[in-house]
Order: sequence, then C-alpha cells, then structure tokens
Amino acid sequence: MTGPRTGNAIVGQAGGPTVVINQSLVGIIEEAQKHGHILRLLGARHGVRGIVNEQFYDLKRQPTNMLELVARTPAAALGATRDKPDEEYCERIFSVFRKHDIRYFFYIGGNDSAQTARIINRIAGDNQYEMRVIHVPKTIDNDLLVTDHCPGYGSAAKFVASAFIGDDLDNRALSGVKINIIMGRNAGFLTAASILARRRPDDGPHLVYLPERPFDLNRFVQDVEAVYDRYGRCLVAVSEGIVDDKGELWAQKVSVVKQETVTRDPHGNIELSAGAGSLADYLAGTLRARCKKIRRIRADTFGYLQRSFPLCCSEVDAWEARLVGQMAVSYSLDAEQDGSVALVRLPSTTYTVGTKLVDLSEVAPDHPPFTTTVPDEYINESGNNVLNSFREYAGPLVGELPRVGWFEQIAPV
Amino acid sequence: MTGPRTGNAIVGQAGGPTVVINQSLVGIIEEAQKHGHILRLLGARHGVRGIVNEQFYDLKRQPTNMLELVARTPAAALGATRDKPDEEYCERIFSVFRKHDIRYFFYIGGNDSAQTARIINRIAGDNQYEMRVIHVPKTIDNDLLVTDHCPGYGSAAKFVASAFIGDDLDNRALSGVKINIIMGRNAGFLTAASILARRRPDDGPHLVYLPERPFDLNRFVQDVEAVYDRYGRCLVAVSEGIVDDKGELWAQKVSVVKQETVTRDPHGNIELSAGAGSLADYLAGTLRARCKKIRRIRADTFGYLQRSFPLCCSEVDAWEARLVGQMAVSYSLDAEQDGSVALVRLPSTTYTVGTKLVDLSEVAPDHPPFTTTVPDEYINESGNNVLNSFREYAGPLVGELPRVGWFEQIAPV
Repeated sequence: MTGPRTGNAIVGQAGGPTVVINQSLVGIIEEAQKHGHILRLLGARHGVRGIVNEQFYDLKRQPTNMLELVARTPAAALGATRDKPDEEYCERIFSVFRKHDIRYFFYIGGNDSAQTARIINRIAGDNQYEMRVIHVPKTIDNDLLVTDHCPGYGSAAKFVASAFIGDDLDNRALSGVKINIIMGRNAGFLTAASILARRRPDDGPHLVYLPERPFDLNRFVQDVEAVYDRYGRCLVAVSEGIVDDKGELWAQKVSVVKQETVTRDPHGNIELSAGAGSLADYLAGTLRARCKKIRRIRADTFGYLQRSFPLCCSEVDAWEARLVGQMAVSYSLDAEQDGSVALVRLPSTTYTVGTKLVDLSEVAPDHPPFTTTVPDEYINESGNNVLNSFREYAGPLVGELPRVGWFEQIAPV
Repeated sequence: MTGPRTGNAIVGQAGGPTVVINQSLVGIIEEAQKHGHILRLLGARHGVRGIVNEQFYDLKRQPTNMLELVARTPAAALGATRDKPDEEYCERIFSVFRKHDIRYFFYIGGNDSAQTARIINRIAGDNQYEMRVIHVPKTIDNDLLVTDHCPGYGSAAKFVASAFIGDDLDNRALSGVKINIIMGRNAGFLTAASILARRRPDDGPHLVYLPERPFDLNRFVQDVEAVYDRYGRCLVAVSEGIVDDKGELWAQKVSVVKQETVTRDPHGNIELSAGAGSLADYLAGTLRARCKKIRRIRADTFGYLQRSFPLCCSEVDAWEARLVGQMAVSYSLDAEQDGSVALVRLPSTTYTVGTKLVDLSEVAPDHPPFTTTVPDEYINESGNNVLNSFREYAGPLVGELPRVGWFEQIAPV
C-alpha cells in the first residue's frame, strides 16, 4: 500500500439543513488540517451547484475560534442545495475536479447526496482519475441505509420530544385535543421520537401515527374519542407523511380538494396550496365536525423549527456529527476504498458507537428500497402508537430531556 | 393602620399558559410561607372553575424541592381555564370564599383574569366581606395596560427570536421565500420580537406584518418580490392577527372560503376549519401563483411551541415572573388596596425594574381600550417592518440569544 496521494479537496453540504451538519463540516476541516495529503480544502457554496459554478470558500483561511462557532450553528454554513445531478451534471462536476486537481471529495448529505457521490466516483474511475469520494451522512429523517442512525436525527428528535413535554403540560392546563404534525415524508422516526416525552402513565402523546401504517380517518376519530373518554384530553403525534390504504399522501389529498376550490371560488384571488399546515387544520376540522362532545380541538405543524431551532441540540448528536466528519478524512487517508461513513452501535451496557466505511452502493443502491423506515417491532398492533421499546433505540441519541415538576396530590378541603 | 387580617388564601392560574407562569405561582407560595397572615394556601384547579367546583391543591403540603422544579416547568401547574365569569359565576365564587374563610385571592392571568378579579372584589365590597384581591400579570401577548411588559412575553419573544435566527440560516442555506406566522391576535409584540434575530444587514426577517397595520395582499406580493430581487431570498414574519383595511381577520377570511368548500365537496367527508396553519398555506399559495420567478416558497406557523417549549426560557422573564408573585403577597400584607401588580422600568443606563400595585380598574377598565398594542414609534412608515428602536424595549426582556458563526469571505479559486 502506497501513502495517500496529495491533492486538493472539496467539501459540500446538501439537502435540508440540520442543527449539527456544521459539526461534520468542521470535523472535516480540523482533521484535514492535521494531515499533509490535503493541500487546499475548498468549501463548495450550495453543494454541487457551487462546484459547477466554481464558487468556493477557502476553508483553511478560516480562523479556529470561528470554526468552533460555526460548528455550533444550525443550518449549512456552506449553503445547501436540492439539486440531484444527473450523468451530464456529474460530468461537469468531474471536469471542475480535474481542473483544480481535486483528489478528495467529501459530500455531507442524505440519500440523494450518496447517489451523487456514487455517480461521480464511477465517472472518476471510468477516466482513470485517482480520487477518493466519501459520503458523510446527515438527515433528520434518520432514513439512510446501513448506518444505525443519522447525524441530525438526535437533535431534531430532542426538539420533538421537548416540544411534546411542553405541549402535554399545556394540554393538561387547558384540556382538549391537540394534534401535532411532524416532519418525515416516508420514515416515521421523528414522529416516533415524540414518545420520549412520556413519563407518567397518562402523559401524551396518546396516539402516534407514522407513515409506515395506513391512516384511516374513521379509525382516527374513534381513537381520539376513546382517549378523550378516558383522560378528558388527547395529545396526538401525526407524521406529515401519513398515507391512506392506497398509499396516497393525506397532505396531498387535502390539497387536491383545495385546488378544486380555487377554480370554483367566486372571488378570484384566492389561491390555496398543499401544505402540512392544511393537514393539521383538516384533521382538527374533521374532529370538530364529528366529535361534538369535545370542546377544544387544536392542531400545530412543527415545520422547519425541527431542523433549525438553535437552542435544542443533542450533545451526543453534535459529537457524532463531528466524528463522522473527522472519520471521513481519516478514511480518505488510510482506506483504499471510497464509501459512506456509517455509525455502528457497539454491544455494550451503555450506549457506545463506532464508525465504519461502507461501500457507496450499499447506501445508494441501484434498486429500492433506497431508504429505511421504522422497524415493525416498534409499532403497536393497531398501528396507532409506538412501543416503549423505541426508547432504547432513540433515547441515547437524544440525551437528557428537560425535567419538569407537577403537583400530584389533590387535598380536598 | 391595623395589621393584616389572618385568613385563608386561594391562588389560581388562567388563560393560555406560558413557560414562566409557574414562577409566579411559586413566588406566591414561598412568600406566603414567610408570613403569618395566610393560614392555608389553596391552589384552585383550572382557575375559577376549580373554585366553584371546590377542587384544590393544598400548596403548603408541597415539598420545597418540588416547588423549584414546578417553577421551571412550562404551562400552568394548577391547570388553567378560559372561563370568563359573569356576575352570577362570580357570586358562586364569592360564596365559596365565604365558606372557606378565604381572605386573599391571587389570580395569575391576562386581561380577562383582571376583569374577573375586579368583579369579585366589588362583590366582596358589596357584602362588606373584608378580603384582598390581587391580580398577577401573565401573557405572552404583552398586551396588558399599565405594566411596562408582561411576564411570559420575554420567554415567548426569546423563542420567536431564536426560531428566526435558525430559520434565517436555513433560508440562507436553501434560498427562497419563507413565511412564519406568529401568535398575537390583537397586539404585534411577539411578531415584532422576530427582529431581535437580525445581526447582519441582510439578516431576516426582511418583512414584518403586525396586526396594528392593515395587511394588503397585493402590497405583500410586491414587498416580497422587492426583497427577493435584492437578496435572492426573503424571510417574512406575519402575525396571526393581521387584518384587512376593513379590520377583518385574514385568518377568518381564508377560513370562510374553506367553509364554503365543505358544502360543495362531492366526497362528503371533507371538513376544513379556520386556523393559522391555513393562513400560512394561503399566503404561500398566493406567492406561488403570482411570483413565477420565485422557485421555493414555504410557510410555517409557530403555534403553541411559542408558549410551551421548555428549553427556551428568558432568565429575566423567569425572575420577573417570580417577582410579581412574591410582590402580590407582599402587597396583600402592607397595602390597604386591592390591585394588579405592574412592572415599572426604572430610569437607568442598564435595564432595571421595580413593581407597583395599580388599581384593578386601570388594568381592567370599564371601557375600551382593554388592552394595549405596539406603539406607532416602533413601526415603519410603510407598515411592513419594525424599527430597530424596538430592540431597546424588547432586548432586555429576552436576554442573551444564541450566538452563531458563518464564513464571510469568498475566496475564488
């Protein structure tokens, strides 16, 4: 084995930001500084788009104290992109690589980014251009293949669990039904994290609907009524990605009805659009129409706060996000293969993780499934709740949650 | 002046919870423990409703360490209520007071609670029943008369400002238009707090729409396009309480259109309802239809997170919420009058507050205005932004905000 080839490197960030994606970026920068194989480290602005447009930050010019501040900052400091490059786009990326003697490419992102990394890697191979392409995992959806979990998930899960702790107390203070719509189009991991909020037997969420199970509106109404009869209140976690028994998105169905409306509307200037906000209002409206005995029904959509709120970072998540960045550079030094950095949960009585480099084709395969979903073992038989065993999976990734107090005894006078 | 009369006391919490309303409750409990004039301290469950139903917590039985935990817990530990008692309801309250020898009533809440306190106080007077009625201010809307600001506002404002810091970074990472709908039906204080997120000249929110100014849809579209042309992105803060030039709520207007839809819908089981989530989708949909050059348009509604999120408490706000509770008991001891505890900002180079007891009729007057709104001096001439001078008012109430870092220089290769 020969030593690593010296050359320049590009790092990019892609997809929806998280509160720890900059930890991975800084992990790459600080590790690159320790070794001689990376001469210049360029940060591509807005991911692959910044590569083809040749818009870069020179990351070695950034002062160290600034790097630590960037690491603790939500969203993508380099800028992100939703571009999903095709073959031709990747060829353009490759020609920029060749022009600037780029021998290392680190791409921080989800499944799409892993696919991009894989195409570029193949093009480099076809051209006998020696380079290392390393994908660094990131997504609040937690839906990447192979890795035990994804950096970004723990902090988003902490936001959701903390929000449910507060909202359950709010719902106790002013009783009624409260629905919260949570991010995650195909995978219910983030919605499932709401159960970490439960401490007392009657704590919410009392019902949890994931995209992994079909959502039936009549069944939903019955579920809510049953909980309300028991506790005089009901807190519900609903994934924005819930589908009906034909696999059609409920958010889309609600939107279809509205778009019909637009053409019928006599005032002319009313335009309605798809959105999780409408799903929230739709579910609340359905309950209002059908459950006359329930007086107070509210619905919220957590939205982008889940991935960007600055005061809600999981320490474990931040640490692991830094780790996968550092390890990406380490692997580029030692390994002869390209790949994706995966987190491995080690057999231990306390939570411990390691990393491994897995082939890009395992994380970005040719055929579906391209992503993963919540395993059946964590979902109850009725498909309207998440089992407490999920705590063992998600709890360590979230870390400590806010402690709260309450008065237990009623002392009648 | 004779010493204070000994007797029992009731404390209650009302209206929308905040993250610091329990600080006020614990302030009352700990101060009552220091003095002999309050024999039993009863916590009414769900405010006035708990009084007429005689459902109480015995607050002297609660262990001290539990009290400190309760103080740091969001939402109302005693339970809250939206009941706005009329004369007859207040008579029932008064009869419970007489039955249990209640000589002190502390009611933590907003304008409605002050009105309730005032009615009860009058009934006690009419019956020559000696008692002290003290209203303790609380509302995230910050719309109470007389007081410089309201406990609960600072923490909710910190949530909004922190959310905008994160969301502005998110909007920089993936450029586009982002609209955030913020709580506050009649007063724009909470929406205005979004400007505390701004540090750099191009930081969002770039547009801020308060209920204090009529919201024109065409003007809104023009405003957004102008900002987008300048920065390639646009972050917008919109109050849920925005009204048109006739004073009609936009949230209601959107809802009216939807309710027409319900009757026309052929599928039968579609029910749509009013909601801020729909306002968000409506504004985003309008931009999508009219601004074809803007590719990415999103909207969120912050919802109940603003008043219940546990990890976002302003230290100043928590301290002041505790203070108004303590002072309520102090005033019940010394003053011969009933009233509402108000915060007074003292003339000083650094932020300093004191309290005073003001007559209930000043906080709960017979005639409008019953509440206050954002003063004209803080709103720009075009009515689409909040001036930086508002920072001097709101900044000290919020305290330190999350620090963030970013890469400034572009070093072209």
